[in-house]
Amino acid sequence: MSADDVTVHPDRLLPADPSVRAIARELYGEMSGQGIVSPHGHVDPRLLLDDEPFRDPTSMFLTPDHYVTRLLHARGADLADLGVGRGPLDEGDARAAWRILAENWHAFAGTPVRFWLEDEFSRVFGIDHPLTPGTADAVYDTIATALPTPALRPRALFESFGIQVLATTDDPCDDLSAHAALAADSTLPGRVLPTFRPDRYLEPLRPDFVSLTDALGAAAGEDTGDYDGYIRALEARRRHFVEHGAVSADHSHADVGSTPLALDEARRIYREAREGAVREADATALRRHMLFEMARMSSEDGLVMTLHPGVHRDHHPASRERFGHDIGADIPRPISYVDDLAPLLAAFGTDPRFRIVLFTIDETAFSRELAPLAGFYPSVYVGAPWWFIDAPDAILRFRRAVSETVGYSRTSGFIDDTRAFCSIPARHDMARRLDAHHLACLVAEHRMSIGDAARIARTLPTEQPSHVFRLDGASA
Amino acid sequence: MSADDVTVHPDRLLPADPSVRAIARELYGEMSGQGIVSPHGHVDPRLLLDDEPFRDPTSMFLTPDHYVTRLLHARGADLADLGVGRGPLDEGDARAAWRILAENWHAFAGTPVRFWLEDEFSRVFGIDHPLTPGTADAVYDTIATALPTPALRPRALFESFGIQVLATTDDPCDDLSAHAALAADSTLPGRVLPTFRPDRYLEPLRPDFVSLTDALGAAAGEDTGDYDGYIRALEARRRHFVEHGAVSADHSHADVGSTPLALDEARRIYREAREGAVREADATALRRHMLFEMARMSSEDGLVMTLHPGVHRDHHPASRERFGHDIGADIPRPISYVDDLAPLLAAFGTDPRFRIVLFTIDETAFSRELAPLAGFYPSVYVGAPWWFIDAPDAILRFRRAVSETVGYSRTSGFIDDTRAFCSIPARHDMARRLDAHHLACLVAEHRMSIGDAARIARTLPTEQPSHVFRLDGASA
Amino acid sequence: MSADDVTVHPDRLLPADPSVRAIARELYGEMSGQGIVSPHGHVDPRLLLDDEPFRDPTSMFLTPDHYVTRLLHARGADLADLGVGRGPLDEGDARAAWRILAENWHAFAGTPVRFWLEDEFSRVFGIDHPLTPGTADAVYDTIATALPTPALRPRALFESFGIQVLATTDDPCDDLSAHAALAADSTLPGRVLPTFRPDRYLEPLRPDFVSLTDALGAAAGEDTGDYDGYIRALEARRRHFVEHGAVSADHSHADVGSTPLALDEARRIYREAREGAVREADATALRRHMLFEMARMSSEDGLVMTLHPGVHRDHHPASRERFGHDIGADIPRPISYVDDLAPLLAAFGTDPRFRIVLFTIDETAFSRELAPLAGFYPSVYVGAPWWFIDAPDAILRFRRAVSETVGYSRTSGFIDDTRAFCSIPARHDMARRLDAHHLACLVAEHRMSIGDAARIARTLPTEQPSHVFRLDGASA
Repeated sequence: MSADDVTVHPDRLLPADPSVRAIARELYGEMSGQGIVSPHGHVDPRLLLDDEPFRDPTSMFLTPDHYVTRLLHARGADLADLGVGRGPLDEGDARAAWRILAENWHAFAGTPVRFWLEDEFSRVFGIDHPLTPGTADAVYDTIATALPTPALRPRALFESFGIQVLATTDDPCDDLSAHAALAADSTLPGRVLPTFRPDRYLEPLRPDFVSLTDALGAAAGEDTGDYDGYIRALEARRRHFVEHGAVSADHSHADVGSTPLALDEARRIYREAREGAVREADATALRRHMLFEMARMSSEDGLVMTLHPGVHRDHHPASRERFGHDIGADIPRPISYVDDLAPLLAAFGTDPRFRIVLFTIDETAFSRELAPLAGFYPSVYVGAPWWFIDAPDAILRFRRAVSETVGYSRTSGFIDDTRAFCSIPARHDMARRLDAHHLACLVAEHRMSIGDAARIARTLPTEQPSHVFRLDGASA
Repeated sequence: MSADDVTVHPDRLLPADPSVRAIARELYGEMSGQGIVSPHGHVDPRLLLDDEPFRDPTSMFLTPDHYVTRLLHARGADLADLGVGRGPLDEGDARAAWRILAENWHAFAGTPVRFWLEDEFSRVFGIDHPLTPGTADAVYDTIATALPTPALRPRALFESFGIQVLATTDDPCDDLSAHAALAADSTLPGRVLPTFRPDRYLEPLRPDFVSLTDALGAAAGEDTGDYDGYIRALEARRRHFVEHGAVSADHSHADVGSTPLALDEARRIYREAREGAVREADATALRRHMLFEMARMSSEDGLVMTLHPGVHRDHHPASRERFGHDIGADIPRPISYVDDLAPLLAAFGTDPRFRIVLFTIDETAFSRELAPLAGFYPSVYVGAPWWFIDAPDAILRFRRAVSETVGYSRTSGFIDDTRAFCSIPARHDMARRLDAHHLACLVAEHRMSIGDAARIARTLPTEQPSHVFRLDGASA
Repeated sequence: MSADDVTVHPDRLLPADPSVRAIARELYGEMSGQGIVSPHGHVDPRLLLDDEPFRDPTSMFLTPDHYVTRLLHARGADLADLGVGRGPLDEGDARAAWRILAENWHAFAGTPVRFWLEDEFSRVFGIDHPLTPGTADAVYDTIATALPTPALRPRALFESFGIQVLATTDDPCDDLSAHAALAADSTLPGRVLPTFRPDRYLEPLRPDFVSLTDALGAAAGEDTGDYDGYIRALEARRRHFVEHGAVSADHSHADVGSTPLALDEARRIYREAREGAVREADATALRRHMLFEMARMSSEDGLVMTLHPGVHRDHHPASRERFGHDIGADIPRPISYVDDLAPLLAAFGTDPRFRIVLFTIDETAFSRELAPLAGFYPSVYVGAPWWFIDAPDAILRFRRAVSETVGYSRTSGFIDDTRAFCSIPARHDMARRLDAHHLACLVAEHRMSIGDAARIARTLPTEQPSHVFRLDGASA
């Protein structure tokens, strides 16, 4: 096997210059042995509760991962042939989909998707030569053969990955029974926490707003026929989440407008929304008011607020109709944080019980808006790069954009935000290597001492996110 | 001659680190021998048809190149003294203009303009010491003496530059006789293709809209007195271009709004525009509708759509009045791609006959908007950096911004977009060196294997643009 | 003492690669011995007139520097405990505040604030080991003991820092007596110049607009009861500043809109503003008109116009009420330069008497808007990175963003913009090291000759800002 065939190099992502790389190796060594704290992601808790073996390579790595399917789609594949929008594929279709991946594998060179998958293939299955059309079936067979073994079941992987905390993302109406069952199970060597994700209950323009708020009322035991009951219901569901270990509430709207309304005005718009007669501008105003209300509730119940804004969802309507949401057709767009968040931060920005993590896919916000906000408000932290910019060069740009204004202590720690359970260690490892890379460059240019860099490196993997998300037991 | 006096180093633009440079040299070697495919630019086809010798150094390198004249203007030169807006300069004035360039040459250090010109001076004229006030006349004389030689005529240069495909930019009313004559001439070792550029026929606010649409009708043999005839005329002229070998249609408006209008509404606004009574908002709506229509036509006739938006044209009105358009006073401004293109992409984004290349001068759009769009839609490609950002650091930023989302296969290949015929090899060479630089850094950091990098390098110069612009004969 | 304990390395900020560092050292050597020209900043002229010793370390380095206090605030400190909004602290409180700084010093690692302060501690006080909770008192005592010595008084430092020109920022109503006294004092080895800063007199929405314009009238000996007197008063105060050596006028509004109004319209809005009955849209229109008027006056009196736009001032109202302005709660936001400045540049952009320096905190404007403007208009210069982006990586990004379009001659030279007198040499030294870093990389990649790089390096510290701000005596 030639060197070109080895996919996973021990120094991958570290600086090329030998003397800088030596520093980076030392700093990476401070991080590589630490466990994984994942305060925000999209793994289904039932994966760990049921602990069923993964079905096949395609359903494990390809079909559910829109990072993978979107580029295959762009290169001409039909999403249906990749299993999107279908039930489980039979063996023939699953293998055919896998071959499509192999035929296009070369086009993933330079993307984090390929980095993560090659890390997973190597880490979990011992495969460290590239996927090609010629090796597609052999790789498929190697994975398929290994999947039923006990060591590759979800809970065994959870343990071998060293996951200490894993937060899921959950509907406010979820009874959280899966989380309760996991919490009651002392054999799981780590915590699985729910996250309150109320977005769709806060969008009065949705055609299903009445049925959603009805369901919310039913779950909470409140009458959501009017605004006051709606607020009580949200508060009750948040309490339910807090009681089940939730530490944060996540929000993803088109913008981060947060101007509060007078109570009468909020009541009127809510009533009109329930009657199906809300005007668009009013609906937007109520949604922005509700973001303010969510901050108010966070300042009371201590759930860390996380914002993931600025995405044009379902950009291609025909694909949404055919395949549903979350199929890779969500596209970022620029938004404004500073003016839009001013009302919310004026009210809660220095409240010691309040905490908010601001994420962006618009990199320009890092140095211009997010770092300056987090460098003044005690409640504000800069979220790690997310989604499209959760990638090596973008992560280095992030550190270089924010560190000069806020250092490291005002950032969130790495957030994997993933649905792909097996990619969690690869993603965290990538972030650690890049933080080592970044810090080593500062040390080599005499901009930071090796002692300071090592101290920072030690805090980044677990201490920093544990602090930001109050996982260390600090009260709200 | 000291080392400082040599302008063109064999390793220019490659990484400084010796081990990374060695990788970059190897990758550059995969590209440097390839011919040139130039699918978008502004060379006049009559240059090659007439094959007249270039007149003098000033008319060849200075006067027509607004990259050069704009910085001289900023440094105090009068554009008239550089020949802008005048007919051919006599020898005294041409030499005086050249001396202005020489006196300011030091101020071009670090700009791509100087890189290109020094490459051209060296490549074409064997001049590889710097231009200074002291060498101005000697350099002028060397070039002026060489210009009449047969090897320096346009067609000889076309051949020695290794140009395989050269696309021009042409008015829809052009009869394309120059292209027909070139196509009929088997002695030209490469193809010269027209490009359909309808911008000004799509701007109802222009004071000359009636005369333009009249001319369009005359060229097409259609009555453009009403909207339906206008559409038929545009379709007819596109057919004429396709018949003469055109592969793309280019569009440069202030924004990329693409919301289609109801037919009656389009007819009404067109009628009012013809009557000189169109309201500004209506005119803008019709222009956006027409961008949608252009996409519809592209989906039918297969012309690849290229968008070059976001420029405030003729920013300085007094200079426009004195010297005309395209004199260096066009300034970029930010625009939105994602929301504005949504209607167009909803209709045609997954149409296999449709293809669109999105260019930007706003670098922030690369990672935020263009790469995410090209990573989902099979029809969308990210255009190479253009105009102000067609420069070394900007090109590296481009690769680092888009590769992590879409790799290399969803990018356009290098586009020189130039009026300066002699700069074509220098511009393509710069791009190849920078792609080698970029890929070598990935290899050195173990983010890509040398085999993958070499394979990508081989495809970038000619295979990739030939594929994107369907120059490889693939049907629409 | 271990190497880790030395804060100030002789090669700090230079590239890590030994061969590139050698080039950078050579280029830095061209700059390091030059004096300091500071054409824009916020030092109080009375500091030099009174020449009182600095009181204590806290009032010297901590309390007045919102770069320092804002990050301490974000990390939980009460601004009052840092002395903000209070009179001089007694020794106990001053030392307590200093200990807060020491406890949080590790969190400043990687920020320019720490770089500057460690440079100052070393340069002025000979302290070159890090501040820690354990060394806090000792460092405090070292500084406090040294402060009364003659060599550490402001004028002695002015001389030892090598300051040749220091511009302050002054209210239009200031009689400039401090400047007159300093100008009359031949013992000060450098010039101290006032800067005309009229912002608040141009904002008709301010609640104190009447009293401000009254005061302006009183200072000018004009009746500002109507618009014409208001204009005459501004012109008169500018003359007063010019007579006292001012070379520039500074402007910082929320945007750079510059559309002029008809005279009657300006008179009407001014009258309504004086009557306290101005509408918001009218007030904004008048402010934009006044920016145009300021440019008109600059084209007549030769004051270089500097723009520092795009800041959301006093983002946290409760902190403004408690502590006042300029306490670290100003946050950048994106603005548009190209369209908004079009009217102003259409009128004055090519006027040889007019000159304007455009600053930004929105880095995206550098390559997209500011460099293209400065590469065409003879009057426009790109301002050096400012405020949040006056930091190593951001400064390198600035050079890489603008040099490819305008080289170096169309940039302002370094601007420290600081209130912190002792940080001036550290800030200029940082900029010089980074320019050496940037140029050395170009030389190492054969993108610029060492001779050109050395020539550019020599001009950047003093020649370039002296030219841009007409400190070299060139007439307007």
